[in-house]
Amino acid sequence: MNNFIMKGDICYSETSDTLRLCEDAYLICENGRSMGVFTQIPENYQHFEVLDYTGHMIVPGLSDLHVHAPQYAYRGLGMDMELLEWLETYAFPEESGYKEPAYADKAYSMFVQDLKYSPTTRFCAFATIHTSATLKLMALLENSGLKGYVGKVNMDRNSPDYYCEESAEASLEATREWLMQSEQFHNVRPIITPRFTPSCTDALMMGLGAIASENHLAVQSHLSENLGEIDWVKELCPDSKNYMDTYISAGLAAPGRKSIMAHCVYSDEREIQMMKDNDTYAIHCPQCNMNIASGIAPVRKWLDIGVHMGLGSDVAGGATLSIFRTMMEARQVSKLVWRLLDQNLKSLTLEEIFWMGTKAGGSFFGKVGSFEPGYELDALVLDESRMPHPQALTLRQRLERYICLSENGDLLHKYVSGNKIF
Amino acid sequence: MNNFIMKGDICYSETSDTLRLCEDAYLICENGRSMGVFTQIPENYQHFEVLDYTGHMIVPGLSDLHVHAPQYAYRGLGMDMELLEWLETYAFPEESGYKEPAYADKAYSMFVQDLKYSPTTRFCAFATIHTSATLKLMALLENSGLKGYVGKVNMDRNSPDYYCEESAEASLEATREWLMQSEQFHNVRPIITPRFTPSCTDALMMGLGAIASENHLAVQSHLSENLGEIDWVKELCPDSKNYMDTYISAGLAAPGRKSIMAHCVYSDEREIQMMKDNDTYAIHCPQCNMNIASGIAPVRKWLDIGVHMGLGSDVAGGATLSIFRTMMEARQVSKLVWRLLDQNLKSLTLEEIFWMGTKAGGSFFGKVGSFEPGYELDALVLDESRMPHPQALTLRQRLERYICLSENGDLLHKYVSGNKIF
Repeated sequence: MNNFIMKGDICYSETSDTLRLCEDAYLICENGRSMGVFTQIPENYQHFEVLDYTGHMIVPGLSDLHVHAPQYAYRGLGMDMELLEWLETYAFPEESGYKEPAYADKAYSMFVQDLKYSPTTRFCAFATIHTSATLKLMALLENSGLKGYVGKVNMDRNSPDYYCEESAEASLEATREWLMQSEQFHNVRPIITPRFTPSCTDALMMGLGAIASENHLAVQSHLSENLGEIDWVKELCPDSKNYMDTYISAGLAAPGRKSIMAHCVYSDEREIQMMKDNDTYAIHCPQCNMNIASGIAPVRKWLDIGVHMGLGSDVAGGATLSIFRTMMEARQVSKLVWRLLDQNLKSLTLEEIFWMGTKAGGSFFGKVGSFEPGYELDALVLDESRMPHPQALTLRQRLERYICLSENGDLLHKYVSGNKIF
Repeated sequence: MNNFIMKGDICYSETSDTLRLCEDAYLICENGRSMGVFTQIPENYQHFEVLDYTGHMIVPGLSDLHVHAPQYAYRGLGMDMELLEWLETYAFPEESGYKEPAYADKAYSMFVQDLKYSPTTRFCAFATIHTSATLKLMALLENSGLKGYVGKVNMDRNSPDYYCEESAEASLEATREWLMQSEQFHNVRPIITPRFTPSCTDALMMGLGAIASENHLAVQSHLSENLGEIDWVKELCPDSKNYMDTYISAGLAAPGRKSIMAHCVYSDEREIQMMKDNDTYAIHCPQCNMNIASGIAPVRKWLDIGVHMGLGSDVAGGATLSIFRTMMEARQVSKLVWRLLDQNLKSLTLEEIFWMGTKAGGSFFGKVGSFEPGYELDALVLDESRMPHPQALTLRQRLERYICLSENGDLLHKYVSGNKIF
């Protein structure tokens, strides 16, 4: 039974503008869910075990809403190209290697091991086109105790011969087979994953839309990341209103069914509004957008329009799994947007970046990413011992500092739905 | 006697475009200097002890040419303002605290401890206006085994009452006193440090120029970082040709005597050329330029003009001491320059960022930052154990990856002038 109490300095988001900061407080976990944060243990929970993390910050687990698991092996490499050339030169050759079960096992084990010890508790991951390797990844993730979604990737056009599915029908058939086999997993669920419009024929897009709809499955893909990519989509889909419309018209984004679109660097107000109208999350991946020279997404516009949003490491366009680092980078590039592009777009605040990495992104998974009553108890106990300070700091200062300074090792404990991961 | 041989996978820059990558090679150290890198131990060095780092990368120590030691305590805090407001709100109040010897001792000890275990072997550091605290910092650094320059800061105008020297003469007198007392140190040398033009009266600038000239001392300051700052300098110095001219005309930059100017975000070709003509180093601090929303320095122009240059952590405008991370950030923001500002400014290559952090910046300290014969032997033995890879990588790939992925703890050993630091 996941019933316990965590004592410590507790921080979580209420809204995009509001942090709750509770020093020396008690977080109640009952059946894996938060019952709230209190200054004293309420009477009816007095019999719960108290995990004493006094002096340590406790924050919600982070959500990584865009990560390419098979690219983890080459993170930090090949940072010298733009998207389309980078895919052909680095991503596709590496991903094609996952057809070999031994390689998939070895490389995915490294990814899952590092993800387990990262600040991420919830994820949306791309796999490859290979059913068996995708199931391997799901098994490893299931075993890690983390929760999230994995997608077998679909690609049936404009891809190299060595890494392309034979036809739309073959791709759909493989997807159905994969979905059936995915039923063995509980913490890790399947998500429909057309790579991006250029890689998928209309028949494949429509077929995937139908599968998503029939099975009530979420969808993840890429949107408006790079100028060359956007021009290409215009050529490929001359009848679409814009890039987002290629997903909507195939039934891959629709009201009432969640979908994820990574990047949205060049999405204008109309495209963002279409995402909002179709319950689509805009995922900000600032490091990748720098590394492959895509640009900077105007997140302030997303906030103004009120589209759902979250953060992504986008390994291996991004090199690091830490969503704390992504928060910092989101804040940094938002300052460059303000400085270099548009002074109407105010830079992001500490409150906003923390909310994006916790409650905003977590909402994709249900009641996740906060400690308000009823939320699943995903929690990180932070280790600040590597960052001593000569003066006393407020809790808000400690949180800001931790986001800027933390490295992979700076976690003491991690819980997912009240289960201790380490 | 610092005579030994290091065996390992050795990487160093020859030029901004040329990396030398020597797998399983021998780096000869005689009297603290490199005698070169060889595939076999030359006959006359056969009697030297071999330090066997087989399988580990060995690279030159890194140079941090712009770091504010007293700001280290609040790195990662207050990332919500531009330069001038940030100085008033965060930097000046914190720096003023160093008038208390006990606080200076405590806070500088934390800085020096972390710098010692960072990848930095050579530094140019700002202290505060306080002579005694500055000497304390120098003593701690001397004791660490690292080498570099420390400057007592000069400020006699436009500064808060609680953190401003009484007059130009008082500031100059304190500087002379500090210089005399600095003679006790050998590895740590003084550098003349007017904070920046707005903080220094003409009399102070001229007096410092004279002291630098008489004592053959280098100079460090700030240049063209922020638009508000530049406008202010124009108002304060209506007769100067540009910001750089305020230093040149005071004798603070001159041919044949090295000086350092941090940032140069908005320096145009003319200003860069004036720096080049006056043996001035342009120091790139990309993280700070994002954090306090200054912009992005056009480093490609610096390379084209051929001005001396280097990298700076700029703690605490920057939050982290790692110049490896600065290298990565330099590459990232150079892609944003190309993407968002000017497609004539090609993004920086791996070779260029590594050269900036080693040989280019190291040249400020003499023959430092390479393993070519005659260079002082500053070396890092790198630890890649936290980043396993499922395939074999080339040495160049390992280096690129290490720059992107390394954290503070990923060093096995560090040598300065052939002395083992750890």
